Amino acid sequence: MLMGNVKNVALNEAGDAILALDQAAIPNRVEVVTLKTQKELYDAIQRLVIRGAPCIGIAAGYGYYLAARELAGEADFFEKLHAAKEYLASSRPTAVNLFWALERMERVTNENAALSREALVQRLRAEAEAIRAEDVAANLKISENGLALLKPGDGVLTHCNAGWIATSEYGTALGPLILGQQRGYNFRVYADETRPLLQGARLTAFELMDAGVDVTLICDNMAASLMKRGDIQAVFLGCDRAARNGDAANKIGTLGVAVLAKHYNIPFYMFAPTSTVDMNCPDGAHIPVEQRPGHEITSLWYEKPMAPEGVKTYNPAFDVTDHELVSGIVTEYGVVRAPFEENFERVMAEKKRSLGL
Amino acid sequence: MLMGNVKNVALNEAGDAILALDQAAIPNRVEVVTLKTQKELYDAIQRLVIRGAPCIGIAAGYGYYLAARELAGEADFFEKLHAAKEYLASSRPTAVNLFWALERMERVTNENAALSREALVQRLRAEAEAIRAEDVAANLKISENGLALLKPGDGVLTHCNAGWIATSEYGTALGPLILGQQRGYNFRVYADETRPLLQGARLTAFELMDAGVDVTLICDNMAASLMKRGDIQAVFLGCDRAARNGDAANKIGTLGVAVLAKHYNIPFYMFAPTSTVDMNCPDGAHIPVEQRPGHEITSLWYEKPMAPEGVKTYNPAFDVTDHELVSGIVTEYGVVRAPFEENFERVMAEKKRSLGL
Repeated sequence: MLMGNVKNVALNEAGDAILALDQAAIPNRVEVVTLKTQKELYDAIQRLVIRGAPCIGIAAGYGYYLAARELAGEADFFEKLHAAKEYLASSRPTAVNLFWALERMERVTNENAALSREALVQRLRAEAEAIRAEDVAANLKISENGLALLKPGDGVLTHCNAGWIATSEYGTALGPLILGQQRGYNFRVYADETRPLLQGARLTAFELMDAGVDVTLICDNMAASLMKRGDIQAVFLGCDRAARNGDAANKIGTLGVAVLAKHYNIPFYMFAPTSTVDMNCPDGAHIPVEQRPGHEITSLWYEKPMAPEGVKTYNPAFDVTDHELVSGIVTEYGVVRAPFEENFERVMAEKKRSLGL
Repeated sequence: MLMGNVKNVALNEAGDAILALDQAAIPNRVEVVTLKTQKELYDAIQRLVIRGAPCIGIAAGYGYYLAARELAGEADFFEKLHAAKEYLASSRPTAVNLFWALERMERVTNENAALSREALVQRLRAEAEAIRAEDVAANLKISENGLALLKPGDGVLTHCNAGWIATSEYGTALGPLILGQQRGYNFRVYADETRPLLQGARLTAFELMDAGVDVTLICDNMAASLMKRGDIQAVFLGCDRAARNGDAANKIGTLGVAVLAKHYNIPFYMFAPTSTVDMNCPDGAHIPVEQRPGHEITSLWYEKPMAPEGVKTYNPAFDVTDHELVSGIVTEYGVVRAPFEENFERVMAEKKRSLGL
């Protein structure tokens, strides 16, 4: 099993480069790429070599530390480090983990500005490693919380990729499925291929097969047919940003699955570490949605273009699912249900207490 | 404009071969293939060179005539012709037009068994041409009936391909959009790409651009996002077989679109010439659904496989939309709404009267 033997994103031993599992090469090649510069990291995030909200957050933490390390000798260190942070923050607009991780790293910088440059850099390295370790711990709790929602033999539909490749270990929505397999639950998992970037076909199917889970790959438009047949007992999928009211952005297609699940009375759970919950965002209308180029639909992956030259396209990377469609958002502090705002506040207070804040 | 200048399926002048627009080569090549044998026709239907329920029906009519022509000199003519009919009928299981057209041709054979072999063959050729001509006439009426459901500037979502390429001229679901363009309605049409075979990207986008219609290509999983934004005022799509109670099979993904349309209070219309309505079929549970091979999902069209080797797949070619989700089925005799059985019977009676039966 690959999980546990390879980290999806990590620092190398010398601490001068990021080692990243090339998520764009899976399933045809399992390959780790070395990223040394801010530009290389930026490009890796934009080209989806590194993707998945928590994984992007972890990578951004490492990237910020690398920038500090590189800039340590410079006179205008703090200005340049801030510019490096803004640069990384501009790589993708929707996932909140990116901004959250960079803000956290900058706060540590500000709080430790009196330290020697070298000590500060080491402090930042430790903070970046803490971001990853917290994600691993959160995922294990999320996986347990999710597993409690299922019965052995259940059919579970998932969309896009919210496994360890997108996070750190186990993952969020896929965590309970991998954990359940290790405990003999024998789920039947159906993975939406997730057009246009095929994260479900390339990554989710790969991860689940690697973990020994019974997984069946479908096209996104086949989910309704499975639900009607009674093959799906729950929908488990990730979350790129949850707003305070429970509206939540996730991979394009999530909203459609949520509507189908409601129609067929199937519980619909989104999985989000609390780092993905944006309490400053009142509702889904305030979540910016990234638009991506049309060639992802018309010609990417293909031997020859599969649509007429010059055809117009609409290619949002995400959609926002209204909280009325969400049975619950599974966090490391339990399953948050409606009323979401009230229950998120409770969970955030619990988080503060447990972190001794 | 290609429509009107090229027929999607026709007999050649000598009447000894079928000329078929290769639907598998569009949009990259516009190419007409010549089919001389039953095997070539069978393969063309199975490989989707010829596809679309009405188009398959027309091709089957021509194919039956060609078989009669080829077998005319044989002693056991009627047995062999029946075997040829059964062979063609086995090419695809879901579209009713295939069986309907072949039954109709066989009935003409039986009714004219006393004719000379040569005269019978000519009679069959005329019957096959009549099947096509009736489809053209039906489509024009369907297009007018569909156009009456829209307002200028409306946004219309379509799925798969139900235009002239899939029928004869104008098409069913796309007919009103092409006709409306000719009359200055300026619709905004959104075409689902329609995985895994991409009929929407390859054919619908091609046809609508060819007709000057404003068309935007989307992945199937993006429809919900457009509906939520208020960009869709109606869903127009085809039908491969409608049961007596209004349940209807169409390209996989149709059911999901129907559920979304209901959720967003958007009228959902299926388009079917009465030849596609199977009054012998009580409901959707009695419509067989073709399962297709998994490589269509995992590797077809691609430069390299996009899913792990050996992954399980579920690849139904169709799904069945429950009549409760259908606002109406648009036929050449008007828009049939609930209660479907009663209203289909009325339409079928009207058809009989208008055909002088």
